[in-house]
Amino acid sequence: MFDLKSYLAAKQILINNFLQETIKKTANSGRISEAMEYSLMAGGKRIRPVLCMAACEAVNGKYQYALPAACAIEMVHTYSLIHDDLPAMDDDILRRGKETSHVKYDEATAILAGDALLTLAFKTLSMAGLSETDGNTALKWLNIICFISRAAGSEGMIEGQMRDVASEKTILDFDQLEQIHQLKTGALIKASVLTGVILGKGTDEHLQQLKIYGENIGLAFQVADDILNVEGDPIVMGKSAGTDTAHGKNTYPSLMGLAESKKFANKLIARAMNSINSFGTRADPLRAIASYIIKRKQ
Amino acid sequence: MFDLKSYLAAKQILINNFLQETIKKTANSGRISEAMEYSLMAGGKRIRPVLCMAACEAVNGKYQYALPAACAIEMVHTYSLIHDDLPAMDDDILRRGKETSHVKYDEATAILAGDALLTLAFKTLSMAGLSETDGNTALKWLNIICFISRAAGSEGMIEGQMRDVASEKTILDFDQLEQIHQLKTGALIKASVLTGVILGKGTDEHLQQLKIYGENIGLAFQVADDILNVEGDPIVMGKSAGTDTAHGKNTYPSLMGLAESKKFANKLIARAMNSINSFGTRADPLRAIASYIIKRKQ
Repeated sequence: MFDLKSYLAAKQILINNFLQETIKKTANSGRISEAMEYSLMAGGKRIRPVLCMAACEAVNGKYQYALPAACAIEMVHTYSLIHDDLPAMDDDILRRGKETSHVKYDEATAILAGDALLTLAFKTLSMAGLSETDGNTALKWLNIICFISRAAGSEGMIEGQMRDVASEKTILDFDQLEQIHQLKTGALIKASVLTGVILGKGTDEHLQQLKIYGENIGLAFQVADDILNVEGDPIVMGKSAGTDTAHGKNTYPSLMGLAESKKFANKLIARAMNSINSFGTRADPLRAIASYIIKRKQ
Repeated sequence: MFDLKSYLAAKQILINNFLQETIKKTANSGRISEAMEYSLMAGGKRIRPVLCMAACEAVNGKYQYALPAACAIEMVHTYSLIHDDLPAMDDDILRRGKETSHVKYDEATAILAGDALLTLAFKTLSMAGLSETDGNTALKWLNIICFISRAAGSEGMIEGQMRDVASEKTILDFDQLEQIHQLKTGALIKASVLTGVILGKGTDEHLQQLKIYGENIGLAFQVADDILNVEGDPIVMGKSAGTDTAHGKNTYPSLMGLAESKKFANKLIARAMNSINSFGTRADPLRAIASYIIKRKQ
């Protein structure tokens, strides 16, 4: 029986150490580094970097090799949370049980800390690439930078956030909502998985199979988030519940009801599992993460 | 006699075409692309990308080769302007004679358009690198990505903006002010020059000489900006004058007076000119740009 708890704990230590070290090296000991560290080390679940390393392992790669890229993706994720929480966007005051960046510091600092984390992600990726002595491996890192910037930018996450903000208080249909989530959450989760595959030297077939895995768990993650926003415990989650309804947000529960949303999440996870059927035990972490995504309480 | 006006006009056409094409390719025809294009094509002087290409030419490189990197730097610069203009920072309503992004659109869109331009800069750099067939040249592009992310991030431009915002209404000494400007404006201008040198295959000696050039014109640019904010014509500049004093900002004129500030700017430009004495006529564009920086009216 695969023990996800220990697996996550071990990977989280690696990730947290790498992130902490990276901030330390970049730091000029001022307010900006402090704000970057505050949000980056606020106790996130590290799902994206863990997925990146687990995907690397699933194709027989060394997960250690994927660590810098995995952490760069977590920086991109954290920057997006800081900016999404801003008064001009979702106006959230609590995140992971702590004050959001603009509440703890101020709006200017929160905007700049987000900007700095996004920039640091690309520095981290380029430095990992520069540590290669072989030029052809360098090309692989350029590919990953291209890949992550597309998933994070106006073709991906940012377009998703734009549509999300624009659609508050209007009613979307199922396809529109799915598209928003594929862009806003799905693109970066899929990129996390595929970055791991590329760094683990997976084959084209691996890439195809794990693309399906990534797409399905990415969407399932968002459906589960919407469900938690309805029935989750604010104390366990470390953030307010019921905020989606209060903001007039389109969510899966608001569109199809709670019971149907749960069925839908299960269907997505079944599809993800199916796509990695042929992988054997080395994909056990990916399977356990897929189950966890819809069972989590926070 | 070198004709800077024609030189700038020719380069600006190249730059504007490349930027317009890049936005078009990335576009999903929605509001975010529109906002990105609005600020990117708002008629900026394109000093940074022109410097990048001129530095490439100065070391006998082909300026066309530096075009993607030059334009990526302009994207970084434009993102920083959008975010600096936000209500939480400088709260400016006019830029280049047009409404600032958050006035024309809204705050959420302005924040995201800035984020998207920063992300697009790194996509542009990685794609330029990926078009190389030779792995060792790929390493050069990783080096440039590292370089630009350091100049733009919390070790450079962002730290400068943090200190600038924090120092409003407090009095700085000359060294503190110089440091802020070296970070806020100088780092990216220097990076523009050095990116051109690297892509033009300049020697280590070239790099050293042009580093001094870049540092001095970077600072001179900011001193000239401060002077313009005092005595510039708002109509010619396309932005309000006198805003620095109104915001209680530390500037060179407020610290050393107008006459001394002008002398200081001239001294910096003389130092920049001196550093490229040995370059011959192929550095004429760099010389003309240095003079222009302190003579410009906008």
